[in-house]
Amino acid sequence: MAKSLHIYLQIANNIEQKINSNVLKVGDKLPSLRTVALEKGVSLSTAQQSYFELESRGLIESRPQSGYYVSYSHKHFRNIPQTSQPVIANSTDNIEDLIFTFRNNISKAKVELSTGVPALELLPVAKLNKALVNATRKLSDSGLNYDKSGNGTLKKQIAFRSLMWGGNLKEDDIITTSGSMEAISFCMLALAEKGDTIIMESPVYFGLLHLAKSLGLNVLELPTNPVTGIEIEALKKTLEKKKVKLCILVSNFSNPLGSCMPDENKKAVVKLMEKHNVPLIEDDLFGDLYFGTHRPSCCKTFDESGIVLLCSSFSKTLAPGYRVGWVAPGKFKDKIARIKYYHTLYATSITHEAIGSFLENDRYENHLRKLRQSLHRSSLQFLRCISQYFPDDTKVTNPQGGLHLWLELRKKADTIELYNTAMANKISIAPGRMFSLQNQYNNCLKLSCGLLWNEKVEDALKILGKLAMK
Amino acid sequence: MAKSLHIYLQIANNIEQKINSNVLKVGDKLPSLRTVALEKGVSLSTAQQSYFELESRGLIESRPQSGYYVSYSHKHFRNIPQTSQPVIANSTDNIEDLIFTFRNNISKAKVELSTGVPALELLPVAKLNKALVNATRKLSDSGLNYDKSGNGTLKKQIAFRSLMWGGNLKEDDIITTSGSMEAISFCMLALAEKGDTIIMESPVYFGLLHLAKSLGLNVLELPTNPVTGIEIEALKKTLEKKKVKLCILVSNFSNPLGSCMPDENKKAVVKLMEKHNVPLIEDDLFGDLYFGTHRPSCCKTFDESGIVLLCSSFSKTLAPGYRVGWVAPGKFKDKIARIKYYHTLYATSITHEAIGSFLENDRYENHLRKLRQSLHRSSLQFLRCISQYFPDDTKVTNPQGGLHLWLELRKKADTIELYNTAMANKISIAPGRMFSLQNQYNNCLKLSCGLLWNEKVEDALKILGKLAMK
Repeated sequence: MAKSLHIYLQIANNIEQKINSNVLKVGDKLPSLRTVALEKGVSLSTAQQSYFELESRGLIESRPQSGYYVSYSHKHFRNIPQTSQPVIANSTDNIEDLIFTFRNNISKAKVELSTGVPALELLPVAKLNKALVNATRKLSDSGLNYDKSGNGTLKKQIAFRSLMWGGNLKEDDIITTSGSMEAISFCMLALAEKGDTIIMESPVYFGLLHLAKSLGLNVLELPTNPVTGIEIEALKKTLEKKKVKLCILVSNFSNPLGSCMPDENKKAVVKLMEKHNVPLIEDDLFGDLYFGTHRPSCCKTFDESGIVLLCSSFSKTLAPGYRVGWVAPGKFKDKIARIKYYHTLYATSITHEAIGSFLENDRYENHLRKLRQSLHRSSLQFLRCISQYFPDDTKVTNPQGGLHLWLELRKKADTIELYNTAMANKISIAPGRMFSLQNQYNNCLKLSCGLLWNEKVEDALKILGKLAMK
Repeated sequence: MAKSLHIYLQIANNIEQKINSNVLKVGDKLPSLRTVALEKGVSLSTAQQSYFELESRGLIESRPQSGYYVSYSHKHFRNIPQTSQPVIANSTDNIEDLIFTFRNNISKAKVELSTGVPALELLPVAKLNKALVNATRKLSDSGLNYDKSGNGTLKKQIAFRSLMWGGNLKEDDIITTSGSMEAISFCMLALAEKGDTIIMESPVYFGLLHLAKSLGLNVLELPTNPVTGIEIEALKKTLEKKKVKLCILVSNFSNPLGSCMPDENKKAVVKLMEKHNVPLIEDDLFGDLYFGTHRPSCCKTFDESGIVLLCSSFSKTLAPGYRVGWVAPGKFKDKIARIKYYHTLYATSITHEAIGSFLENDRYENHLRKLRQSLHRSSLQFLRCISQYFPDDTKVTNPQGGLHLWLELRKKADTIELYNTAMANKISIAPGRMFSLQNQYNNCLKLSCGLLWNEKVEDALKILGKLAMK
């Protein structure tokens, strides 16, 4: 189903690989456009397009009357942070106050480097408006009545798209929700109760931690690798030692680490869950935002017993404010259906129909392709700026998809302090401390590459880097 | 703010009162239209309009070349059921299966006498479609982004309208939600935990019972009068005897009893809550649907300490599928805000803006006036049909607002059986057993008057009455 990449992108990716593997070094002159065109059998304008692409990724630069040169190299990528070694203790300080200060301040920032969603400029606003108007015409009740069985068009499209991650969902396997967080909330409410223990990655999106905490669950934060996700050994040992009620993982391009679990890890996790009879809530809300050539699989791909409850949404790819999410709850479907009915009855009829019909033709794939390119370019520009402007000992992740970068500053750095000085400059960041219930990650921060890349963002990163020097 | 009633309605209501108080009896001839016009100083067509109105309420009939006659009298109103005396025990049968059979079957009914919302024909479909399109233009992000602080237009209008029930809400007192059930869910999640005891009316909307049950709360179902609501004495005694964590009341035109608490009872409840420091979740989702001349107050009207969490929505008056609700959580605002953020983040931006702007001018009041008239007429027609077609010993409520009628058949009647035979005739009703966690109300049922009144509905009630004879 995935269309093959445009030829100019193939050429650009090929050159990027050579830069990353140090075959092409900083300062090296690239072949002329005429040579590229001849060698690859493409037009001059296609060759030009690939060089434009590499320029927008911050990898090459043009020098007037001379040609194109490599301006950035793999060597310049910072070290990646090591596997987290989260503290397991009972923290007493109230991190919730920090989270709500952070949340309430967001609108005061002029450059929002902590947003969890793509910028409006990257979303298909006009097309979605049209889809919304069409939805009022297509639904016989104009979307005024309850969406009693969940929007059929939407469920069908989600099932169809499951082929892309190697899944095999049927329309009837899916329960629609108001976004992915609601889906996860339903899963937790259905499968765990006060006093139960639940496993998460560490660091992990603070909303998940506090959702669990608000339900009286004990969260075990496990060591997590910035590239490959949760450590399988640590997971195995924990499941053997403790009575665990639930596990929740963001398997692809997690927030904040950006890790993407390899297939063998996903398989291993599913096996462990089955062995210990622990349901896995898998949140795949970033899975469509891969920078490479293939969409990653899900744990659900390898789930034969129905122990995985796969949650996702269209909040990171289309319209956060439409509140369109879903869960494929495997063998727990009846339980989740009941919880949904008791807690919120139904989701918003009209926006679910609009997204459902938007998915029906090529529009979504075309949009995703452009969105992925923008986010990929943006993340490379972020990495370049961090390399240029931040302290030398800064470590940063190099995610292969999603929206987030995780930075580790020197041991003694205080990113809550950095947050305050950045906000004084009207720049928002997410301090690392928020991503744990324990007192840790105080020298870390999360940046989001969801903004449209421009000079204003570069300037903000320059200021941030200066502030981080102090 | 409430506009005075049209003169023809004043005349009609006046005559209805005379019929209800037995001043005018069945068979009495009404004054001629000319006499009415002269006496009241109105035009002939206005006099005609009031007689049409009384006809549509099923109270009078015209006989060709003779005039208008009273066709229905207060004597014909059935007995009202007595104050409920709910069983307090632990029931073992699984009532959830009945509820989900009921829920899944609803779409199979051709005449839906159990719907909880007004029929589509009674809603302003075209105007809401327009409001939705305007909302995509008015919001600078077309509603694609998160509605981070709750829609301002909506909150302002809700605050403004609080004057109508004697409240004094400010915009900032309000948290928007996806419907009233989500608001109540947030309140329960924030204020109670597994093992806690919560007080409700009995019978009560089954969704509330099972929401509480799914959270591990113990529900105490208290005696409730079909006219005045929960028994204050029973509430007082329970609060003195037991440790109660929460109380939830539908103070106006409750589902299923239709009771409306008098002001003195509302005051007494608030005092009791304050005395025992028990938060009151008040669900006022039917408050705007009064049949009389004045909107009833809320418990919140008499709440000075912030102990009442007032929940409501526009699902019963405008657009159930838009998922627009709210809570004014009093002193618990921070707790509710956090629960909302953790469980669902935000509500749907575009539908909240559409409803907000719909409330901004007279449209909503004009719509409500028409809707209330339709529901009032419909409820009187239902009562007439029940009187005509149902067994003589049937008792039925005579609510002064809302959508619901509660019927009590003879002691040995089995309304689950009646539900099954009715569904075989493609008529849906709500068996009384659903409205309790205990094994009771097996001879009761709930009917909804939310349908547009017509012959099909009358025929369905005729069939239902026949089935109830068996």
